Amino acid sequence: MTARELLTQLPAFKALQQQASELKNQSVIELFEQDPQRGETYTVEAAGLQLDYSKHLIDDNTLASLSALADQAAVYSGITALFEGSHVNNTEDRPALHTLLRASRGDTLRERFADVCAAREQMKAVADKLNRGDQSGFSGKTITDVVSIGIGGSDLGPRLVTEALQPYQGIVRCHYVANVDPADLEQTLAELHPDSTLFIVCSKSFLTEETLANALSARQWLLQAGASTADLDLHFLAVTSNLQAAQSFGISPCNCLPLWDWVGGRYSVWSAVGLSCAIALGWENFCDFLAGAERMDEHFRHSRDSDNMPLLMSLLEIWYCDFLGAKNHVVLPYDHALRLLPDFLQQLTMESNGKRVSAAGRSLDYTTAPALWGSAGTIGQHSFHQLLHQGQLLCPADFILPLSTHTDKAEQHSKLVANCLAQSRAMLVGRSLEDARSALLARGMSDEEAEGLAPHLVIPGNRPNSIITLTTLTPATLGALLALYEHRTYCSGLLWGINSFDQWGVELGKEISAEVLERLSGKEGKIMDPATERLIKAWKDTPQ
Amino acid sequence: MTARELLTQLPAFKALQQQASELKNQSVIELFEQDPQRGETYTVEAAGLQLDYSKHLIDDNTLASLSALADQAAVYSGITALFEGSHVNNTEDRPALHTLLRASRGDTLRERFADVCAAREQMKAVADKLNRGDQSGFSGKTITDVVSIGIGGSDLGPRLVTEALQPYQGIVRCHYVANVDPADLEQTLAELHPDSTLFIVCSKSFLTEETLANALSARQWLLQAGASTADLDLHFLAVTSNLQAAQSFGISPCNCLPLWDWVGGRYSVWSAVGLSCAIALGWENFCDFLAGAERMDEHFRHSRDSDNMPLLMSLLEIWYCDFLGAKNHVVLPYDHALRLLPDFLQQLTMESNGKRVSAAGRSLDYTTAPALWGSAGTIGQHSFHQLLHQGQLLCPADFILPLSTHTDKAEQHSKLVANCLAQSRAMLVGRSLEDARSALLARGMSDEEAEGLAPHLVIPGNRPNSIITLTTLTPATLGALLALYEHRTYCSGLLWGINSFDQWGVELGKEISAEVLERLSGKEGKIMDPATERLIKAWKDTPQ
Repeated sequence: MTARELLTQLPAFKALQQQASELKNQSVIELFEQDPQRGETYTVEAAGLQLDYSKHLIDDNTLASLSALADQAAVYSGITALFEGSHVNNTEDRPALHTLLRASRGDTLRERFADVCAAREQMKAVADKLNRGDQSGFSGKTITDVVSIGIGGSDLGPRLVTEALQPYQGIVRCHYVANVDPADLEQTLAELHPDSTLFIVCSKSFLTEETLANALSARQWLLQAGASTADLDLHFLAVTSNLQAAQSFGISPCNCLPLWDWVGGRYSVWSAVGLSCAIALGWENFCDFLAGAERMDEHFRHSRDSDNMPLLMSLLEIWYCDFLGAKNHVVLPYDHALRLLPDFLQQLTMESNGKRVSAAGRSLDYTTAPALWGSAGTIGQHSFHQLLHQGQLLCPADFILPLSTHTDKAEQHSKLVANCLAQSRAMLVGRSLEDARSALLARGMSDEEAEGLAPHLVIPGNRPNSIITLTTLTPATLGALLALYEHRTYCSGLLWGINSFDQWGVELGKEISAEVLERLSGKEGKIMDPATERLIKAWKDTPQ
Repeated sequence: MTARELLTQLPAFKALQQQASELKNQSVIELFEQDPQRGETYTVEAAGLQLDYSKHLIDDNTLASLSALADQAAVYSGITALFEGSHVNNTEDRPALHTLLRASRGDTLRERFADVCAAREQMKAVADKLNRGDQSGFSGKTITDVVSIGIGGSDLGPRLVTEALQPYQGIVRCHYVANVDPADLEQTLAELHPDSTLFIVCSKSFLTEETLANALSARQWLLQAGASTADLDLHFLAVTSNLQAAQSFGISPCNCLPLWDWVGGRYSVWSAVGLSCAIALGWENFCDFLAGAERMDEHFRHSRDSDNMPLLMSLLEIWYCDFLGAKNHVVLPYDHALRLLPDFLQQLTMESNGKRVSAAGRSLDYTTAPALWGSAGTIGQHSFHQLLHQGQLLCPADFILPLSTHTDKAEQHSKLVANCLAQSRAMLVGRSLEDARSALLARGMSDEEAEGLAPHLVIPGNRPNSIITLTTLTPATLGALLALYEHRTYCSGLLWGINSFDQWGVELGKEISAEVLERLSGKEGKIMDPATERLIKAWKDTPQ
């Protein structure tokens, strides 16, 4: 990694710049006309997901050059390094083995795999016991609700999975609390009973400010309701690598599930951080979730070029960001169950690749991670799609579409499907001034009226987008989908020359926050800039 | 409007380009050193909100030139036109009178104001009756739950307000259903009882596909539970301008609340679209919400230049988008109650100003609305803040911070405050290579280790951000906050020369969706591009 050339110095980079200047104004509709098979050939399948990438501003030459770029960036050896446990997280000198967490065999990583299997047994035991209704709280009542306390990587993944697989929901309901704002926990607890609620505290370090603050408030809630400190073991589990800190908090080692330094927070839903999902969905469904991800891992490991779905999606990201100037990427799941996916992917991509130095510490002068955002279709159509169709920004979009529904309302669901296909097509075809004018005349407008209004209806089209289809959103296809984006993120990191597994940029804010907190609590501390000083004073002047 | 020069032709534009090229590399810390009063002078107060804009890449010259730009773009006459009911929505030939919806007097708009007052009376009657527990369903049970069915402008506003003002929640709980995906309604109804649930169907046209599909499913749910068609009047209200369509659906005119063509969807929370808020919070709180917005209206109407908070925020938006290349804007409310604010603002700004032609239909060759996204602090710190601090994108940020909490946990809340001030300060000050190296050495690293790692800890700083503070999040301050962003959006539209009140770009998708739906339902219809054809076939081949 350290010896590698940066993206802009790879031989294929120049060729791609040239192609970009030609393709920038190429009509994709024309490409379809030149090659009617494009809708078939520009698709790839993996682990139950099918990606249609035919509506992109690319042709066979682009794909060949992008493949060359991947070769030159040593992406394939990077993929091997990931799976084999090399220290791909070089700044923290450790591997990133989220793939091992969902593996069915350990290969060369036998010891770590044995640890993973032991943790799975522990998770299964907890999940099974709760799902049999065999676990009671301090008053003898059965535990019916679980509150998972964590933030970032310890929150977004399990929250998404539980929400997305709601049709698989068992008898224990899982809730999630993340924010240090006390309103988050307070609102969640308002609907729960202390004697039937179990808390899972997820923090690798057991030092995360938000998580500890909420865990302490949760403990207080239990004690105020009549639990004794000895009862707390009935109501608290921890997922952590810091047994000692958990024990000081009052959670005994036998109630702790492990997390290892080789699991990054945003890649941790497959570990015991996903315990709440295993509880909510039941152990078998959680295993299916892991198995779906493993199928994507196998595909990723053994496919090349545009047959490799995660790599292909990453190359498209590079294409738009570094050759066509995109600063945004939009994810549009046409499935209400996947409404938290954009939030999850925002962390995955922006925390992994929102960086400005290479893995070796060299300054990068090219665009790295774009902003990723989006919302469930059809919600976004009544919000930001106006900009997607007529705005001035290049926002490549991923549509995600399960072709069937878990509800009994297939007819209503077909409207969702129609809207998804229509949005993707509208981005492709757009609407010309002539078409706009005719459409207005057909509505009965006068020539003059139509002439005046038509420019407002023009849509340039040629807006690039992918559609990822799957038959049904199941634990397995969801697992494959998340693994797909994990690997896409990793490939983009390799191409940009970035370490996708650290996040040094968040340290400074934490340090300053501790300094500000000291000042807020009345201690003498560091004097800040005048604006911050004024706001500290404003807070102190506010009655609390 | 039609005769106006476009942004790039205004005299101040060139001056600002020149200033941007100078200020681009100006350290804001140095500006603070040159003028320690900057933290005081670069603030403005309105309607209970205080904006600190001292951490922006601007100086007094920039502010003067931006003010000149506003003058040259005829912003002040645009503001007058808005309040006086001129047809500022020129492509639909009507006014945009959301300010009248919260006005306490009608001035020259007497007739419309009388309509508004009558609607308020009707809303008050509904809200009061429900809050007295005086409204019963078909079995005689009291109505305890309201489901507001709407999408986009008929959803995001009331959903946000109800959520944000949860501490003011009364005895009737309000729920929101928007997505055409049947899973949305199904999940909501799973926790409700037909005989104690009231539906409010919000659709100006009463033709919105999603809303009608959900309203029909809701009706079926009631009928299946034993309600007769005659009972439906006990369970349905409509907010619409299409009484006839509502009546065909089965909602009698006396159960309809009005909406007028001069209220845009994304500006409609102040109208009967906000009925669910009035029910959830009680009528008096809803009136306070309106009054807070009216205070901001008064401020907006009568202040100039940087004393005008919405205008100032708009000028900053133009500054970053059109002079410094920003394609993103981030909103970070440090209040869990405001977690839906970014979604609401995404619609407000991106649907209003995500356009590529002027109000007069001329092509624009400059950047209009940026992508707006964000999340509640501290959630985002563990997700995308890595990119904000170290990524390659310019993302100006708005922090929003209530200085006190509604919970009884003031100490935990002070951590939220500390984090907010710290993030804003971290964006300003950054961390130099020298500082990074010393920090690592202080942790006990060797020279060599520190040397290698330090580049990863460097944060450039100088990342522009505002902080909006308020004492407490109340109905009044929330009303002021939403009105602030509405007016900011309008000013940006004026500066960009855009009509912020239409959304012609969403029409095409609807039309194509109807064509696709026809094909999905087996009818012969329009043949699409090969990719869409393949996906239609894939859906047909999927067992439903």
